[in-house]
Amino acid sequence: MIEATKTHVDLVAMGKRAQIASYELAKATTAQKNTLMLAIANAIEANADAILEANHIDLANAKTKGTDPLWIRDRLDLEKRIPGIIADVRKVADLPDPVGHEFDASVLDNGLKISKRRVALGVIGVIYEARPNVTIDVATLALKTNNAVIMRGGSDVINSNLKLIEILHNALETQGFPVDAVQYIQSTDRKYVGDLLKLHDYVDMIIPRGGNGLHNFCRENSTIPVITGGIGICHLYVDETAKLDDALNVIHNAKTQRPAVCNALDTVLVNRKVAQAFIPRMVEHLGKDDVTFRADPDSYAIIGDDERVDPAGEDDFDTEWYALILGIKIIDSLDEAIDHIRQHSTQHSDGILTQNMPDAERFLNEIDSAAVYVNASTRFTDGSALGLGAEVAISTQKLHARGPMALAELTTYKWIIIGDGTIRD
Amino acid sequence: MIEATKTHVDLVAMGKRAQIASYELAKATTAQKNTLMLAIANAIEANADAILEANHIDLANAKTKGTDPLWIRDRLDLEKRIPGIIADVRKVADLPDPVGHEFDASVLDNGLKISKRRVALGVIGVIYEARPNVTIDVATLALKTNNAVIMRGGSDVINSNLKLIEILHNALETQGFPVDAVQYIQSTDRKYVGDLLKLHDYVDMIIPRGGNGLHNFCRENSTIPVITGGIGICHLYVDETAKLDDALNVIHNAKTQRPAVCNALDTVLVNRKVAQAFIPRMVEHLGKDDVTFRADPDSYAIIGDDERVDPAGEDDFDTEWYALILGIKIIDSLDEAIDHIRQHSTQHSDGILTQNMPDAERFLNEIDSAAVYVNASTRFTDGSALGLGAEVAISTQKLHARGPMALAELTTYKWIIIGDGTIRD
Repeated sequence: MIEATKTHVDLVAMGKRAQIASYELAKATTAQKNTLMLAIANAIEANADAILEANHIDLANAKTKGTDPLWIRDRLDLEKRIPGIIADVRKVADLPDPVGHEFDASVLDNGLKISKRRVALGVIGVIYEARPNVTIDVATLALKTNNAVIMRGGSDVINSNLKLIEILHNALETQGFPVDAVQYIQSTDRKYVGDLLKLHDYVDMIIPRGGNGLHNFCRENSTIPVITGGIGICHLYVDETAKLDDALNVIHNAKTQRPAVCNALDTVLVNRKVAQAFIPRMVEHLGKDDVTFRADPDSYAIIGDDERVDPAGEDDFDTEWYALILGIKIIDSLDEAIDHIRQHSTQHSDGILTQNMPDAERFLNEIDSAAVYVNASTRFTDGSALGLGAEVAISTQKLHARGPMALAELTTYKWIIIGDGTIRD
Repeated sequence: MIEATKTHVDLVAMGKRAQIASYELAKATTAQKNTLMLAIANAIEANADAILEANHIDLANAKTKGTDPLWIRDRLDLEKRIPGIIADVRKVADLPDPVGHEFDASVLDNGLKISKRRVALGVIGVIYEARPNVTIDVATLALKTNNAVIMRGGSDVINSNLKLIEILHNALETQGFPVDAVQYIQSTDRKYVGDLLKLHDYVDMIIPRGGNGLHNFCRENSTIPVITGGIGICHLYVDETAKLDDALNVIHNAKTQRPAVCNALDTVLVNRKVAQAFIPRMVEHLGKDDVTFRADPDSYAIIGDDERVDPAGEDDFDTEWYALILGIKIIDSLDEAIDHIRQHSTQHSDGILTQNMPDAERFLNEIDSAAVYVNASTRFTDGSALGLGAEVAISTQKLHARGPMALAELTTYKWIIIGDGTIRD
């Protein structure tokens, strides 16, 4: 079994090979790509035992290192994930192909026929931590959109990833695709992350998937356009007109259904007019499921005698909890809620719970986040929940794509301009 | 009259004020924005003499510095430009407003109503050299799309720019818009360019408009997403089936109609089968209008005795001429043409002149440039020529927007998600 390696990697050579592969990939038809997807799904199915064997090495290493068991279960462990991974690959085969679509077509007065044609980005670089299923997600979404990809996964799951890459390479080869279409930086030496970020002659987009540190490192060091995102300090504002039973239910779902992901709820803002009626019920309802609370002074005055409640510390409203912890703050008005969210949100997913539609509309307009919600759990900000069928990342920046990114977001367009000896006056 | 200054500028304060202005701008209606556009147009008209007076100072300074007169005429001089600038602002008022448009709407099985709503980016940073008309272009396009903007123009035109900013500020104030919506970095100290590029807490997008050096500096130093572009090493390939009279006409237009812009032609590739028939005619036809040539060895063998022809130097096929100079290379096949363009193009505008439609389609698919042409001059790659009505930049990168960028390209979208107490299973 392969161990984490520190061998030398020639990234420029990888970039050149990826670019050449992208030229070949540009010619692949939808049918060829879908056949490839099904071959990948079948190969994962046939090699499930070998994948789990590699994964067990990673899990054992993680336990030895003393990694948090919740983290291991949620991120590293493939045991219960393989059928889902296979189903996702088959779903990608079924998704409509965005590449080749022509749009915005017109004929100008001078006879020039113009349109935009959707095409692959070219070469995508993906830097991710843990979650070996990302290896398959990213590879299949990239290939379905005629893109080559260079991946660099976390050292925690190097064995799982290298096994998955081997399976991908076999499928590419068998289906007549260039094997260089999917390349993996085998070294766990972090210097190669920095090197990948400078490969702008060959790589068209960088997607980091990981914590704040990784995103900041990419933003500060990349000469390639970076999609930053995946960091979610998410808010729900309980308006004075909110249906409180629904609010309890929605907040419970947003906080507890999968706490270690980016669209999980971090802070609840409660209008003062319903604070007395609502906050103790919320503490009781979520507390039963092991949620603890960080309360601002006003809400602490109401619920501070509950042992599950601590006073909110200075940075607590700027923390993405990734855990069963919830911040609570009492506010006086929609304006104050908007101000708080503008100041503390990471512009991922923020919502209002209200029956007042003008206030809902103001919230939708004035909160500048990738996903803005009315009367729903923030947990829906992801590609599969929003009907994209897949997801390569969740962007919290504003360029190119915002929120869940799937197939169309892995493409760009070119202008097609056809004349008949046409010149400019 | 204001002179270039080295006074201290507090960029963080400017960023904060721009962000606050962007919150106000988010509420502006289409009618309010269009009224503002017309007020700006009228104010430019009413102040034309004052603008030219400021511009004359810049022109005098440029002449004293020994700046190339062609450059001065093409870039700095506003003398004949004012009516065009006014007309452009009025055109922006007439253009459809992309902001607020909702698209990709659907209702999910769980009853969740989802859609995407087009919204302003927020705050745009624009760094440009010379061309004071850019000040008005950028400000009006940004305002029409509810964006605030921080601009930093070239020191060569500081007097023209500060006069135009004064006019913009008056119009904003009169029309009840926040004056901070348009801010100009008054210092000509270059350190502020670097500082602007780090202002990611307040600025959502950077658009550099200038030479390769500026674009590279932005790419290497910005922690804000940058739109790189505007650098065009543009090619036309004369296929063996090309109509040679049309080809002459198109190449003449692409090279001479406005040589100092990015979509002007730089290199002609000629298929060997028509080289003898075509290249001497091309030298004659373009040579009459003062074009000189840099010929590869094979074409030099045909036209080398003409005094307007020099042998191509090592870097000549990697040079954006911005002048009446044209590279010529003889090639043997479409494959070789595609290879040459892949190697030397800046992915701006490249075309084929051919009557062979399968070859044209291969060229369109395999040349990965922002604009790919069949039988037309490369000079059409610009917002007004392609019917966008305006242009803020020409992107040669693949993220967000490619080719000419106008109103829609200054927006992003947010996901609007409306439920009724909806939770995720």
